[in-house]
Parts: sequence; C-alpha cells; structure tokens
Amino acid sequence: MTSDPANLDCPVPLSGGDRVLLGHGGGGRLSAELLKAVFLPPSGDALEDQATLPAPGSRIAFTTDSFVVRPLFFPGGDIGRLAVNGTVNDLAVGGAVPRWLSAAFILEEGLPLADLRRVVGSVRAACAAAGVALVTGDTKVVDRGKCDGLFVTTAGIGLVPDGVSLSIANARPGDRVVVSGTIGDHGVAVMSVREGLDFETALESDTAPLHDLTRTMLAACPSIRCMRDPTRGGLASALNELAAASRVGVKLTESAVPVRPEVRAACELLGLDPLYVACEGRLVAVVPPDDADRLVAAMRGHPLGRGAAVVGEVVADHPGTVTLRTPLGGERVVPLLAGDQLPRIC
Amino acid sequence: MTSDPANLDCPVPLSGGDRVLLGHGGGGRLSAELLKAVFLPPSGDALEDQATLPAPGSRIAFTTDSFVVRPLFFPGGDIGRLAVNGTVNDLAVGGAVPRWLSAAFILEEGLPLADLRRVVGSVRAACAAAGVALVTGDTKVVDRGKCDGLFVTTAGIGLVPDGVSLSIANARPGDRVVVSGTIGDHGVAVMSVREGLDFETALESDTAPLHDLTRTMLAACPSIRCMRDPTRGGLASALNELAAASRVGVKLTESAVPVRPEVRAACELLGLDPLYVACEGRLVAVVPPDDADRLVAAMRGHPLGRGAAVVGEVVADHPGTVTLRTPLGGERVVPLLAGDQLPRIC
Repeated sequence: MTSDPANLDCPVPLSGGDRVLLGHGGGGRLSAELLKAVFLPPSGDALEDQATLPAPGSRIAFTTDSFVVRPLFFPGGDIGRLAVNGTVNDLAVGGAVPRWLSAAFILEEGLPLADLRRVVGSVRAACAAAGVALVTGDTKVVDRGKCDGLFVTTAGIGLVPDGVSLSIANARPGDRVVVSGTIGDHGVAVMSVREGLDFETALESDTAPLHDLTRTMLAACPSIRCMRDPTRGGLASALNELAAASRVGVKLTESAVPVRPEVRAACELLGLDPLYVACEGRLVAVVPPDDADRLVAAMRGHPLGRGAAVVGEVVADHPGTVTLRTPLGGERVVPLLAGDQLPRIC
Repeated sequence: MTSDPANLDCPVPLSGGDRVLLGHGGGGRLSAELLKAVFLPPSGDALEDQATLPAPGSRIAFTTDSFVVRPLFFPGGDIGRLAVNGTVNDLAVGGAVPRWLSAAFILEEGLPLADLRRVVGSVRAACAAAGVALVTGDTKVVDRGKCDGLFVTTAGIGLVPDGVSLSIANARPGDRVVVSGTIGDHGVAVMSVREGLDFETALESDTAPLHDLTRTMLAACPSIRCMRDPTRGGLASALNELAAASRVGVKLTESAVPVRPEVRAACELLGLDPLYVACEGRLVAVVPPDDADRLVAAMRGHPLGRGAAVVGEVVADHPGTVTLRTPLGGERVVPLLAGDQLPRIC
C-alpha cells in the first residue's frame, strides 16, 4: 500500500451493496474486491505478505497501539487520523523519525462502506501529513455485535538518529517540565459529542502528528531528557510514569498548565479533571533548567507548539509522586487514577 | 517486554477480582496493575512508548495481522500462539529472519483474567519458540458486547539477508509448486470444536513457526522464486494470488495434494473443500523444475516439512487461473471463492 489517497473519491462498486459482509474477511474474491475498492491505490503492485524496507542507520524504533474510540468520527478527527497520529507520536517522542506504518482493521459485519472509506481516506491523508508510508495491512471481519463498527491497530517503525537517547528514566531534580499546548482538548471533544453536549464554541480534538515539532525541539535543544505524549490518562498519568521511572518527584504549578476555558467548563460539567484528560497532539518534555527558555522559544516558533509553557519542575522530594501547587498556595498529590475517567477515548 | 514466560505461574492479585474491567484500559492505576500482573516479566524496565532496536543489515521486512479466531482456545493452539506464528510466518515466507514482534490486545470487559493469562503465556512461549522478542505492546478494553473475548494484533520486523528477493510475481512457466505438508488441518480443527464435532482421531491445528524451515529451504535451494503460507482462503487462494501476480497459470494434481484422511472426512461432513481451508503451519513454494527434488528432500529432513510434496506446476496457459487435474483425468478451475468458507478461523 502507499499513502496515496487517490481512490477515495472514486468508489469501486462492491458485491453486497453498501455494507461490510462477513465474506469480505474471508480471503477470497470478496476480500480481494474490498482491498481493491477501499484499501489500495489504483495502481497496486503485487501484494506480498510483508513489506521490505531499506533501513539505513543502525537503530530503529518500533511501537504499536490499538484504537477503539467511540464514536468513529468526532470534532477535529476520526479513528483513522487518530490511529496514524498516535503511532507517529509514540515514535516521535522517542526521538525517532517516523517512516513506515502498518494498519490492521477489524470490521463489524454491517459497517457502512462509506464509513470505512472515510476512515481509510483519513488514514491516507494523515500518513501523507506525517511523512510516513503505509506499507502493510490486514483486514478481518467479525459477525455483527462482536465489534463496534471498526477497530484499527497501527504499528510503526522510525529511524533513530545517532546520538539520540531519550528515556522517561532520565529526569533529574532541577529539570523543568514543559508542555506544548493546552491539555485535554481531545478527550473533551470526544466526550462532548458522545454525551450530546453543545458548547457555544466548537471543541475540537487536538489530534496532530508531532514528528516535526520533536525534530525542531531536538535541533534547538539536544539536552532534552525525554518527551511523552499525554494520551490515555492525560498529563497526570504521563508524569506519574515519568516520576516512577526516574525515581524523582514532579511539582506542577496549576496556574501554569494551559487549559482552554471551554475545556475547563466542559470538564466541570462532566465531572472531569483536565489533568487526566487525553491529548492526541500535545507532548510533555523534561529539560535541564538552563535550557528551558530556549526550548520553549523554539517550540513557540512551531505551529504545534505555540502554546508551549513551563508547567513544573522535577524535584528530589517524594520520588515517584506528582504534586500540584494550587493558585491559593496549597499543594496536593496528583495520583494515578484507579480506573478510567473516559473509556474508549482513543 | 520480553518473551520471558516467567510470571505466568505466579499471578499477581488484581483489583476487580478475576475479570477484566473497563478501567483496566484507562491508562491509570488499574492499567498499570494489569500490565504488571499479566503482561510484563517480573523485572520490568522503564516502559517507553516505543522500543529501540539495533538494525544491522540494510533491509528489513515488516508485516501485521489481526487475529479474531473463535473460540480463543482450540485443539493444537490458541489465539496467542496463532498471532505470533502468523506474523512470524508472514516474515519467514518473504525470506526474512523474524526478530521483533509487537502485540496489541483489545479486551472485552468481563473477560476472565485466567483466559488472558493463558493467552499471554502462549504469546510468550510462541515468541521463545520462534526466536523473536516481544518488544512493544498495547492493551485496550471495550465495554461488554463490543468485542468477543479478545482480539490481538501482532506486527513483526525481520531482517532480510543480502541476496534474498522472493516475490509472488516471480513464478515462471515450468516451475514446480511444492507444499510442506498436509493442508487444512488448522481450519478443520477450529471448525470441529466450534461445531461440536467429535472425530475418532484428534484433529489438531498445524500452527507452527516456519522460520527455521524457510531458512533450511533457502540454504538448500537459493533459486526458490517465492513462498507463501496458505492461511485464510487456503492453498487455492494463495495460488490464485500467485497466478494473478505472476501472470501465469497453475496446474494442480489433486492426488498429489496431501490431506489427512480425518481432515478429508471432516470436510465432507462440513461441506468444505480442503483446498480452501486455512493452514497455519504450512507453506507453498515455487521453484525452478530442476531444483524441485533437492528442495523437497531438504524440506523432508525438517520436522515441519516431513510431508513435503510437489503438487503441481506453473504453466503459460490460462494466466491468472488455477486448475486441478482430478484422479479420473478431468480438469477443473479452482477459482477464488466469493466469500468465506470459514469465518473467524484466524
């Protein structure tokens, strides 16, 4: 496969009308038709069971995520765009240059083919935007009621430049914690459509590929200790994992954490804490104190980092724990949540 | 993650008792508990969002498959073993040496944790048997009734040795078609348990990792044009794809195609044609005529190729079409099936 979105506007007629049939997953003629009509660019080469890729350089990065977001389409994105950006970002925050993607679809019998086409079109467009090639894939169909429309699992390979070695175990006391923009936009956008909430201003997912922002950041500031995209579990969970891995404490300053007013309002309505709400186009970085201003300046010069801000610091106290200083001067622990504020947000 | 199956026998107690909860997919404390109790070896290193791997050599192979087999456990294997072997085999039949795997789980709320542990244990054991490292993964949980127990998607990376260049577009008239053993065992084993059939002899899935057989074959016979594992859609579909990609015809000799008597009997009972029934531990190879005997001899010396046989030849006639010569001397076309003989067999 390639990332060419060419055939999106030119649907090939399919057996079975306008819905996915069990037989579309059977490996026979219907499967071949679906592949040709929906997944492949018009000039498909021979389909091997694997893609063969050149691998210059000595290290590669490899990651995977399944996506089960409900609904499939939400303000600012859809499951296809999310699936590409999510895997691109997991590579990018490790300092890798994302290069190749796989996409494996599990489809529910009866899924409207129009929905599938729209998602596959989003996957292609998102790959093009992130500069990655979709090189291999799979499609399975399960009987009605055994899935929820569609699930998609992406895996990605990136090239790790020489000298790059980021790890969430690298944070040291004194380091500054930087976020790239407002938090919680994605989760609240999905929840607002799911709960049928109507806000005066449009809430949109922040889903975006961060590969170019991370490249810019590493060029400006090679001393970055680590980066993470605060998806499921939000900023609070990402920082708790970092605090545990690095055996340090993290002190956040509540007033410094950027949250859109409409996201804050929606969170109050929904009983959510923005610190735990997923972002899909933001990152958090840890950087030595002397480099923090340079890093924030470099980030603000990038379209996806305009809202960058220092939100806290790494401390030697209370290793493994994240705390928050409130505007009134109090301090409280920001624990890992037991369960889930927001199921099926990605 | 590693492929160490150590903690399988030492279950860590989990919040919520013995079943998967929605919160196990939320990215918080329950998620961390599940990861620690079920997925990680006891001495887990810092969990980055991506694995960084050395990549010696200049070419890598990359593939993915989702697995939705029903039931999760069947004679001769389970969904975990299938998921590892399926991806290992897609790499192996391309001539690559499988090295790294990812596994992304989608779990249904309420899945017994014992089932999950058993599947994860199978994944680990299968990785060890195939010589691959499970290096990255993901877990999502969906609400009850929105999945069917569990689905798993594996992706794999292999190293392609210099000089290896196999493709299903490479077959030429005169070439011989070789299979590595009996066909249809996997599909019939799954169907027999699903349909509650009771045969006098045990029918077992053939699921197995083919990396060592393919290595042996390529060492003995570097002239191999291509290999394929006839999974979904069986031998008939694999050969139809090859015939189309190489623009050649394929002539099979029915009496030469190895089928276990009990598989043949079950197929008659179930109304199936063994040519279309999935294997998960067999391969089909195309080889120049002068090398066919050497290849078959090399395969028969390997535990997974003992039943190797020449089953047909590549012809210039009827390009894109597979035909079968019957024992009575007739010849019939073996088309791609429209739909599915066997849904959710892998």
